[in-house]
Amino acid sequence: WWWFKALVVGVATKTMKLGRDDPRRVIHALKVGLALSFVSLFYYFRPLYNGFGDATMWAVLTVVVVFEYTVGATLGKGLNRGLATLLAGALGVGAHHLATLSGEKGEPMVLSIFVFILAAAATFSRFFPGIKARYDYGVVIFILTFSLVSVSGYHADKILHLARQRLSTILMGGCVCMIISIFICPVWAGQDLHNLIALNMEKLADFLEGFGGEYFESDHGDEKSASDGSKSDKSFLQGYKSVLNSKATEESLANFARWEPCHGFFRFFHPWDQYLKVGSLIRQCSYRIEALSDCINSDIQAPLEFKKEIQGACIKMSSESGKALRELASGVRTMTQKGSIDIHIANSKNATNDLNSILKSTLPKNADLLQIMPAATAS
Amino acid sequence: WWWFKALVVGVATKTMKLGRDDPRRVIHALKVGLALSFVSLFYYFRPLYNGFGDATMWAVLTVVVVFEYTVGATLGKGLNRGLATLLAGALGVGAHHLATLSGEKGEPMVLSIFVFILAAAATFSRFFPGIKARYDYGVVIFILTFSLVSVSGYHADKILHLARQRLSTILMGGCVCMIISIFICPVWAGQDLHNLIALNMEKLADFLEGFGGEYFESDHGDEKSASDGSKSDKSFLQGYKSVLNSKATEESLANFARWEPCHGFFRFFHPWDQYLKVGSLIRQCSYRIEALSDCINSDIQAPLEFKKEIQGACIKMSSESGKALRELASGVRTMTQKGSIDIHIANSKNATNDLNSILKSTLPKNADLLQIMPAATAS
Repeated sequence: WWWFKALVVGVATKTMKLGRDDPRRVIHALKVGLALSFVSLFYYFRPLYNGFGDATMWAVLTVVVVFEYTVGATLGKGLNRGLATLLAGALGVGAHHLATLSGEKGEPMVLSIFVFILAAAATFSRFFPGIKARYDYGVVIFILTFSLVSVSGYHADKILHLARQRLSTILMGGCVCMIISIFICPVWAGQDLHNLIALNMEKLADFLEGFGGEYFESDHGDEKSASDGSKSDKSFLQGYKSVLNSKATEESLANFARWEPCHGFFRFFHPWDQYLKVGSLIRQCSYRIEALSDCINSDIQAPLEFKKEIQGACIKMSSESGKALRELASGVRTMTQKGSIDIHIANSKNATNDLNSILKSTLPKNADLLQIMPAATAS
Repeated sequence: WWWFKALVVGVATKTMKLGRDDPRRVIHALKVGLALSFVSLFYYFRPLYNGFGDATMWAVLTVVVVFEYTVGATLGKGLNRGLATLLAGALGVGAHHLATLSGEKGEPMVLSIFVFILAAAATFSRFFPGIKARYDYGVVIFILTFSLVSVSGYHADKILHLARQRLSTILMGGCVCMIISIFICPVWAGQDLHNLIALNMEKLADFLEGFGGEYFESDHGDEKSASDGSKSDKSFLQGYKSVLNSKATEESLANFARWEPCHGFFRFFHPWDQYLKVGSLIRQCSYRIEALSDCINSDIQAPLEFKKEIQGACIKMSSESGKALRELASGVRTMTQKGSIDIHIANSKNATNDLNSILKSTLPKNADLLQIMPAATAS
């Protein structure tokens, strides 16, 4: 009993946290509930049920399977399902017709061969990266519908009747999903991608702006941080870590975004590929930062006098490229171009040159810090 | 027509390439075809069809949806589907029974509310990372079955009959999938994960062993590489790039592997989590290598005399840690421990110390190369 109570409390706190992190999740769950209970009313609305019979089931099935978190994913799945059902249904009727020509004995054989060939070919096509990304669900539904229709063993006129029933219920289910997902608190994959890219830039900017102080303070700032009383918040030094593995998220958001109609600032043919390119540059940059951040905690530190020599230039360089990135991020957010970025980049480049001449005079191969620059300017 | 021919040729070459890269893909496609045409024979085998009627459809549906590339994914989906159907079916019958108590007018209302609450709660539970990773498909099937059963509007005895039919056909479909996927050329997710981890280590080893030569040669080896005639193969310098983004693949393979029964060297409770930990260390290491590899192509190079001074120690350090990684990888592949690893690590550490004293004497903060060591030794 005590164990059960702990479990309930644990689940409740986790639920609260998930909901508070992103309230759209709660809304999404309610939207799915709404769509399903709406569709299930078809069963009770006699004229509809009499028209469709058991095919009403396909409306429920469609809603459950098609309704996804973002509008793009829902539209993509819905369109995939609709088109694949149509295409496979037509092919299935054709295959069934061909098979009946070969007589009652030959029919199962011919149909099995058809199913084998089409299922194998379609399954293999799922390994193509382009198909996997956008049409994976459509191919599954294609195999399913083709098998069901060609094999069902009904007469052609009954098949046509059934096909019409199923198609229209699938259409209804799909429309309910799309309408609810677009018009009630929509979650746009494109908007999410846009925000994610800007947020990732800001995380890198946080790090770069804080890095200089952190790295050079760690040697002679012990008494200062002790006098602060509490250790100040270092979370800005960890934020970039989530950028390292953002590739999968960005790619799936971009794939969903391609299905979305125009909304807010985004048109239908918004250049989502560009986001992926910027995203991969940001990731490149975050790899350098991961290497940089080791310098803070490394056991092997440069001699103090050397550090003091490069301190000014390094802090300047890092914080100016951080500022440039932050300006870029806010430029992305508001979709405007800002002149101030160039100033920061120029400042940062000056600092780089200063550092370079300091290094030349004291010799070493310190290309390490300089490597942030190409990535920062490129993005 | 010309366009069509180009398309066909393009698709054919791509298909050949996909098939040659991993012939198991072709076999997988054939296996799906086999399973489907086998299940579709149920329609023609009269005693079976008369027993199950239209429910035969659920066998086809199960095969199409459950059959996945790896054994683990197939088992996971099959078990999810079976258990979720059972649970949701029972709950659905219960809900239906409760609703009938509230009279003919109240029934649709009560049922809609049930469906709404359960669908919303189950949809929300899909946001929990733990559920998302392993039971996502089960939750979808739970929502689907509950809605279908509770709403279907049949009398209780007919529901039980239908439920038995559907469950047994789903069971049959699932068993066909599992048997074919386990006994005909199985693709084990666990084995794939195991190989992937070893392969990733080898890619890093390739880089580390080649890096020293590449970095120090680029200055004074111009006439040499020209005399070679052709530029030598540099692919070993690029191999590690695929490691940077391996997280998603590793995690999904580990999730699938947990469903797999013992096979080859792997027991049922094989510690798959450890693979993820090693994988993340390898990734950490690859981030350092990404930063290192910039040194090769960077415009800013250290002065030649300085490079010459550190050359011996650097090459030794890098190639010895590469060798240690290669030994580790072959140790992982054969599941043995090798004593020679310690020797390479000791060599590498000696080289590190040499380099450190050279650097101390010539001053700079060159902690850069040293940072590979912790990651290499930790893994």
